[in-house]
Amino acid sequence: MKKRRIGILTGGGDCPGLNAVIRAATKTAVSDYGMEVVGYIDGFKGLVENHFMRLDPKAVSGISHRGGTILGTTNRDNPFRYLVGGTLENPIFDDVSDKAIENLNRLGIEGLIIIGGDGSLNIADQFYKKGVPMVGVPKTIDNDLSATEVTFGFNTAVNTATDALDKLHTTAESHHRAMVLEVMGRYAGWIALHAGIAGSADVILIPEIPYDINSIKSKIADRFIHGKKFSIIVVAEGAKPKDGEMVIQKLVPSSHDPVRLGGIGNKVAQDIEEVVGVETRVTVLGHLQRGGSPIPYDRILATRYGVAAIDNFAKGNFGTMVSLRDNNIESVPLTDAITELKLVPVDGDVIRSARAVGISFGD
Amino acid sequence: MKKRRIGILTGGGDCPGLNAVIRAATKTAVSDYGMEVVGYIDGFKGLVENHFMRLDPKAVSGISHRGGTILGTTNRDNPFRYLVGGTLENPIFDDVSDKAIENLNRLGIEGLIIIGGDGSLNIADQFYKKGVPMVGVPKTIDNDLSATEVTFGFNTAVNTATDALDKLHTTAESHHRAMVLEVMGRYAGWIALHAGIAGSADVILIPEIPYDINSIKSKIADRFIHGKKFSIIVVAEGAKPKDGEMVIQKLVPSSHDPVRLGGIGNKVAQDIEEVVGVETRVTVLGHLQRGGSPIPYDRILATRYGVAAIDNFAKGNFGTMVSLRDNNIESVPLTDAITELKLVPVDGDVIRSARAVGISFGD
Amino acid sequence: MKKRRIGILTGGGDCPGLNAVIRAATKTAVSDYGMEVVGYIDGFKGLVENHFMRLDPKAVSGISHRGGTILGTTNRDNPFRYLVGGTLENPIFDDVSDKAIENLNRLGIEGLIIIGGDGSLNIADQFYKKGVPMVGVPKTIDNDLSATEVTFGFNTAVNTATDALDKLHTTAESHHRAMVLEVMGRYAGWIALHAGIAGSADVILIPEIPYDINSIKSKIADRFIHGKKFSIIVVAEGAKPKDGEMVIQKLVPSSHDPVRLGGIGNKVAQDIEEVVGVETRVTVLGHLQRGGSPIPYDRILATRYGVAAIDNFAKGNFGTMVSLRDNNIESVPLTDAITELKLVPVDGDVIRSARAVGISFGD
Amino acid sequence: MKKRRIGILTGGGDCPGLNAVIRAATKTAVSDYGMEVVGYIDGFKGLVENHFMRLDPKAVSGISHRGGTILGTTNRDNPFRYLVGGTLENPIFDDVSDKAIENLNRLGIEGLIIIGGDGSLNIADQFYKKGVPMVGVPKTIDNDLSATEVTFGFNTAVNTATDALDKLHTTAESHHRAMVLEVMGRYAGWIALHAGIAGSADVILIPEIPYDINSIKSKIADRFIHGKKFSIIVVAEGAKPKDGEMVIQKLVPSSHDPVRLGGIGNKVAQDIEEVVGVETRVTVLGHLQRGGSPIPYDRILATRYGVAAIDNFAKGNFGTMVSLRDNNIESVPLTDAITELKLVPVDGDVIRSARAVGISFGD
Repeated sequence: MKKRRIGILTGGGDCPGLNAVIRAATKTAVSDYGMEVVGYIDGFKGLVENHFMRLDPKAVSGISHRGGTILGTTNRDNPFRYLVGGTLENPIFDDVSDKAIENLNRLGIEGLIIIGGDGSLNIADQFYKKGVPMVGVPKTIDNDLSATEVTFGFNTAVNTATDALDKLHTTAESHHRAMVLEVMGRYAGWIALHAGIAGSADVILIPEIPYDINSIKSKIADRFIHGKKFSIIVVAEGAKPKDGEMVIQKLVPSSHDPVRLGGIGNKVAQDIEEVVGVETRVTVLGHLQRGGSPIPYDRILATRYGVAAIDNFAKGNFGTMVSLRDNNIESVPLTDAITELKLVPVDGDVIRSARAVGISFGD
Repeated sequence: MKKRRIGILTGGGDCPGLNAVIRAATKTAVSDYGMEVVGYIDGFKGLVENHFMRLDPKAVSGISHRGGTILGTTNRDNPFRYLVGGTLENPIFDDVSDKAIENLNRLGIEGLIIIGGDGSLNIADQFYKKGVPMVGVPKTIDNDLSATEVTFGFNTAVNTATDALDKLHTTAESHHRAMVLEVMGRYAGWIALHAGIAGSADVILIPEIPYDINSIKSKIADRFIHGKKFSIIVVAEGAKPKDGEMVIQKLVPSSHDPVRLGGIGNKVAQDIEEVVGVETRVTVLGHLQRGGSPIPYDRILATRYGVAAIDNFAKGNFGTMVSLRDNNIESVPLTDAITELKLVPVDGDVIRSARAVGISFGD
Repeated sequence: MKKRRIGILTGGGDCPGLNAVIRAATKTAVSDYGMEVVGYIDGFKGLVENHFMRLDPKAVSGISHRGGTILGTTNRDNPFRYLVGGTLENPIFDDVSDKAIENLNRLGIEGLIIIGGDGSLNIADQFYKKGVPMVGVPKTIDNDLSATEVTFGFNTAVNTATDALDKLHTTAESHHRAMVLEVMGRYAGWIALHAGIAGSADVILIPEIPYDINSIKSKIADRFIHGKKFSIIVVAEGAKPKDGEMVIQKLVPSSHDPVRLGGIGNKVAQDIEEVVGVETRVTVLGHLQRGGSPIPYDRILATRYGVAAIDNFAKGNFGTMVSLRDNNIESVPLTDAITELKLVPVDGDVIRSARAVGISFGD
Repeated sequence: MKKRRIGILTGGGDCPGLNAVIRAATKTAVSDYGMEVVGYIDGFKGLVENHFMRLDPKAVSGISHRGGTILGTTNRDNPFRYLVGGTLENPIFDDVSDKAIENLNRLGIEGLIIIGGDGSLNIADQFYKKGVPMVGVPKTIDNDLSATEVTFGFNTAVNTATDALDKLHTTAESHHRAMVLEVMGRYAGWIALHAGIAGSADVILIPEIPYDINSIKSKIADRFIHGKKFSIIVVAEGAKPKDGEMVIQKLVPSSHDPVRLGGIGNKVAQDIEEVVGVETRVTVLGHLQRGGSPIPYDRILATRYGVAAIDNFAKGNFGTMVSLRDNNIESVPLTDAITELKLVPVDGDVIRSARAVGISFGD
């Protein structure tokens, strides 16, 4: 009897735990269901250009603790609007999704496991609507997908940011400085909030709570009165001042402008120096948050997701995404992943807890 | 107006995150509710002997990332059955709970926040039934309290055990050995299960699934056939062979026998050498699992617990314990904490995931 | 009999291990020699303004693993050219060293232990020449003091930078990017060199070896040919192109300009994108390298320095600095510390080893 | 022209950094000297049984930060006294060194790089005396080879032991216990000494300084008087009481007895409970010290060793061992490695420093 054959690809930005998903899905598919597994290289680009590798238990052995993805990834290529020519100034895009489907058919691949964020899962949903069996695995280091309680990679990023805060603390204290740490979180402030609590920040600025520099000034001044001549400020990249525009939009480096011109972290640092009058230094964590070995929590969650994705596929439960709810792995429609962002609830107990231990949100 | 005054104590074994709870509770009580806070030294012993310290935001500053408890703890002293004399052979116990209540009254302490495991929370419940306002904070490094989804300290212990597995892996592989790691978990195998998945163990033995040495033999043999001449076995201290007695009971070191004579980890190692014929080494992690700085996840959870405990107290919500459900902090009756252990569900998705990636439970 | 009384201060930038020196010196002075110890607050500023604290074994207990300095530090204040008034635009400086000496005399302080870099040790030497007993402890995170083989803090900074490289590796590989990491090292490339070898960088740019962007291009191209579509480039902040000016000089943020406008790391990244045509990202580690808990190596070295400094002082061995030579603690004249920088020997075995494992220096 | 061909093997116990040596040596041999490299599997066993693998830059790519050895290792097999038959009780050994040399000749292998401890280097020296070109790379996690200042792996083991001490500290303090940590060091106490200083131990017991339990008692009692109700004791496995026999000799587990019956750590813990009367717990670190990723310091040192070994070989500098002296890589006769152990100098500045910060050696 012919074996069922499925494909896997990773799309979007790097995230610790991708390899653990790939490993778990491959092992489950091969060992539990006797399937064959093909991994597409560099996300949807590999699917369009038919660039793939064979995945079996040996190929995925020993990778669950490694960061990155052995399949490669890009955060650009969309088969429904694919760059097919033109110039840098006038690129020409085309819908090559049929070519991608042809590639699947020619290899006898029944359907795909897509590990990606809202962009990739949106593409997955479009393919599903064209008849391709699809199961999604949610991936967002920012933890801002509403369809799942928590995603792998997020807690590893929180660890990296907390570690940076621990390091900045000693220097801030020795030098009586304000230290600003800019972390990821363009739309939702989860990393800033969690790392800020864990790393004993004094001020946390997140997109969900616009800040007022005078409120930050009061907080820092209050600390001085109590003999604490240093302050630690965590800023999500999407933080914005009240009545101000979001700074990030005009400052995000494009792929042709690698230079970090400085985002909201720089603005906050400058404002603190000017308005508060305290010597301030800023650190932008950047890509460090996407890298490194996933912490055990994320290795386990990624493993559970990978296994569940194959279980879903085997059962014919297509057009779905695996998801964590009440500590159990569930299955939700792919479209759920794309509908709305999961923002930090500003009246939730985590914000409440942060305020109770003396953290200011600048509001 | 006289300020409300409350007491805090930590009971039972050490657990990473205790200090974060103490800090959050103290800051919330003082800053949000204008209460005064007294910390009893060395758990219930301090309560009986009226040994305490003043807690204020300054006293708890900078402790949330530190392991241990600034209040000290013991896992022996129970005011309802307190050692009051006699000899080592014939100790005399007495109920001194009224004396403890007198101590509270004399200091004008309204009630207590008890941070502890089932033993300490049981005592808290007895005091509550005698009219003392009580709010509990669950603490168990083993994660085996049924009344809460997860407890602080557990994920830090999983990290420590996973780190040990990562270290043992390279040595096992270089020397073609079997390596046995004994971790905590007398009644429930949570640490072994989670660390085993995160650390890519080959075999995980937990109390919930009695093992058969021949099944382990098959697993190790199967690995040899696939060219993998080493194996990693994680053993919860409460693991037991099918038809065998629990080894731990007779081997647990008492407080007068500090020497580790060897528990189930040693037995498993010996059996592997004899039955499987592979050179085997055993490592007992022991107290390392209770120590060290809590990981960010646990610092945050402990902070939320500490804040919620004071919120409960302020609202007069006594006889309760704070608890995590669906990622929210809730409040459950103290008695819930004591009723039943939370065992690993043997047909849950975590066990299923472990099996799917090739882990054997020796069954 | 009156006890001998000495002072300690820390000067210059933060460095992991300062607290371990303070602790070791205090314990040795008090316990071994029966001295009294005074710690001046915020470096030479505390000396001038007579701001100090009593140091005894209790005050320094438990600090050896903590980053920063409990005494505070500044990298500005020089008693021989001290800011005494004027405006921001026209500051007025004066020599207040006599006032500092008066302060010492009034407290009956015999002399000082100065923990600092070339700037602070230069000041120490000037005081010594005015008759104040002085013993120096070398401190430079850059490891560029010629009078000592290695300084504490350096290996901790190398660890931090290597950890960042490990994290960037997985992301670079997954995304087929070049990743640039800018590390400290204004005049000497020690951190870049050591972290680059330890973190398996492909290119290391240091001040001692001016680079040519075309050479970097060849290296990256060569990697592509061998199927490696990513490259890791470590850049010391003092790296400079052949025939180019040192970029750092005009880009270093002043104390009134906290904003990181981008240094040599940005330039290198831009050049790689333009000349090599590979998508590139840059990370500037900055202050993270000065913070955090010292690694064991640095705790031990700092402890040895602290003890030896007091031994020197007790023996009347003034005008000296402790130093590591052939793994032994020795004593050298303070002036040795100030004479010349210890640059990376471009024909030494470490550079040779780096080249042998395939690392390019862009030359 | 025929390429020169050399062999590499790793012998003895696992040690972090072995892979970094293999990688550096292979890359240097292939890229710098155009040699071919063969790696023998499982140490001298592979040499005798002609079991090998081809090593080239691709085969060693990405392994320098990985613990263990990709070549495998054993600490038993000696070609000059090789197990050729018999029974477990009456094994028959024979000199099969000529067979090993034949294997080399048949493959056209000119000579060998041996990475090993005194046992393996002794074998290397015997082969050298029979005419086989040999270059040694010293390997001992205990740091007890007199021919080199420091060996790779040692500082990683110190890190692991210090991390354990950091963890035990918080628990010891919370529970008012004595905590004993047994670390490696059968003949020399380097790991115990360095980890003990870095981890702020109160007592360090090493083979070089026989201890008296009453002296330990005084130290612990003295701490109680100063309000410190806990103590941390680090014990090298070769520590011994004054007038006592070395406990280790009768307790070391043989390869047929994996069970840790308890060594000197247990004895010390028992004695503390009995003589001092303090509740005590013991942890045996064991194999954890040999595993894990080498810290940057060791990756660099191992890389330098690997490059230098090939440089030596290429120059025909046979019968030598690479060695670190005054921070430079040098070359010493192989026989130097075998002559005498490098013990901790009991009157050196490290011991002096430890005593000065209040550490007792139990003498």
